[in-house]
Amino acid sequence: MSFRKNRARLFVDSPLDQGTTVEITGQQFHYLKNVLRIRSNQSVSLFNGSEGEWKTIVTEIATKKIVLFCEAKTREQSNPPDFWYLFAPLKKARLDFAVEKVTEIGVSKIIPVITEFTQNTRISTKRLQTIAMEATEQCGGLKVPEVVPLCPLSEILHEWPRGRALIYCDEMAKCSGKIPSAVSKAGKLAILIGPEGGFSQKDRELIDTLDESCRFSLGKRILRAETAAVAAFSLISWYYGNSYLDQKAS
Amino acid sequence: MSFRKNRARLFVDSPLDQGTTVEITGQQFHYLKNVLRIRSNQSVSLFNGSEGEWKTIVTEIATKKIVLFCEAKTREQSNPPDFWYLFAPLKKARLDFAVEKVTEIGVSKIIPVITEFTQNTRISTKRLQTIAMEATEQCGGLKVPEVVPLCPLSEILHEWPRGRALIYCDEMAKCSGKIPSAVSKAGKLAILIGPEGGFSQKDRELIDTLDESCRFSLGKRILRAETAAVAAFSLISWYYGNSYLDQKAS
Repeated sequence: MSFRKNRARLFVDSPLDQGTTVEITGQQFHYLKNVLRIRSNQSVSLFNGSEGEWKTIVTEIATKKIVLFCEAKTREQSNPPDFWYLFAPLKKARLDFAVEKVTEIGVSKIIPVITEFTQNTRISTKRLQTIAMEATEQCGGLKVPEVVPLCPLSEILHEWPRGRALIYCDEMAKCSGKIPSAVSKAGKLAILIGPEGGFSQKDRELIDTLDESCRFSLGKRILRAETAAVAAFSLISWYYGNSYLDQKAS
Repeated sequence: MSFRKNRARLFVDSPLDQGTTVEITGQQFHYLKNVLRIRSNQSVSLFNGSEGEWKTIVTEIATKKIVLFCEAKTREQSNPPDFWYLFAPLKKARLDFAVEKVTEIGVSKIIPVITEFTQNTRISTKRLQTIAMEATEQCGGLKVPEVVPLCPLSEILHEWPRGRALIYCDEMAKCSGKIPSAVSKAGKLAILIGPEGGFSQKDRELIDTLDESCRFSLGKRILRAETAAVAAFSLISWYYGNSYLDQKAS
């Protein structure tokens, strides 16, 4: 939490290497110049999702761009745990919140799905991608989770990869007080959170056909979908070990 | 999550007993009449925090009030776990979110405190109390957590009750991957989340003087204060057992 105060930190889509320069334009330019009021010779941290984190120095502030010089690598690349977040879209503010929070806790892919009771099918992948990017900048992560376009749950399940556990949070499941030990040796899993009306019987039957799926109850209380997402990610990430998170990139 | 769809559920400040009537006015009247469009003879669930949950029937819809008749008790009174949430206030939306979420997960008292790096000291106890009430209505809880007025952390610690563990989430703590087994036999604890700038050295020294306090790290990532609150409540509530939550009222 003290992180943010100390230095600017941005995701960029450019190569990062000793001595290269990076041009910052658009929204990020506005943020550095007008929000953070950055000056020449100040330092900014950059990461691009593959080449670690770099300390850069402001060498030029023009009217529409800021130029940064890559001085030194400060952290080796690491990746979030290979956890996917599958969810039926919610109303805007609650959805934004859920995406921001699971990104902070650690997720590799964000997958909106249409279940039988899904009400809201108009979501902006681009907006969610921006939220995921800002949350990654914020939390110190080095890889922005990918947000994929909305897709029917049945299609996702039809092409489900072998060996990836699918933990689905279902308020109809019995609460065992145990976290499912469903993760494959490769540490790949997905957490699926239903829409406001919960899963339909048809959804459940569909999910249950998958060998890799298991039901999970978060307890007796009725959590909103976005609360369930944060609670499930907190519990499951913790269960599989904090040291396990942010794996070294191979 | 399917809960809300089925029936209206309200917290009221009136006695509830077989055959008594309750008048709903103000905001709750507006909610029942204009949002839910409730009709005569429909049922509404009421709870008052001490006499369980009651099924009531709409007997009168007037221009400024709705009258409900208490037909039968549907659930015995139960209370959330005796967990306190202590926090340095955040910006409005993030604060509202944190209060809503910890209420859903289960909390008995909500205590805003001023730490050395606290920026925002203007918060409305009344607004937070309303959020806690609505979240309790939403999640199926039977007791609304009490929101107390903002107070310096030093004062709270000065009068700290014996036997209540204080778990403070500190990003400077070593991450052991273990949840502190700090709860007293009485099951009383408090979770303290610092402000955006984290705790100051002075805050830490002050907290450390308390026998009941212990530090806790949520992992290597830098979580926003409201994410830390939800993650900590999820983990600690789960650790102390879901069956333990919502204790029978004595």
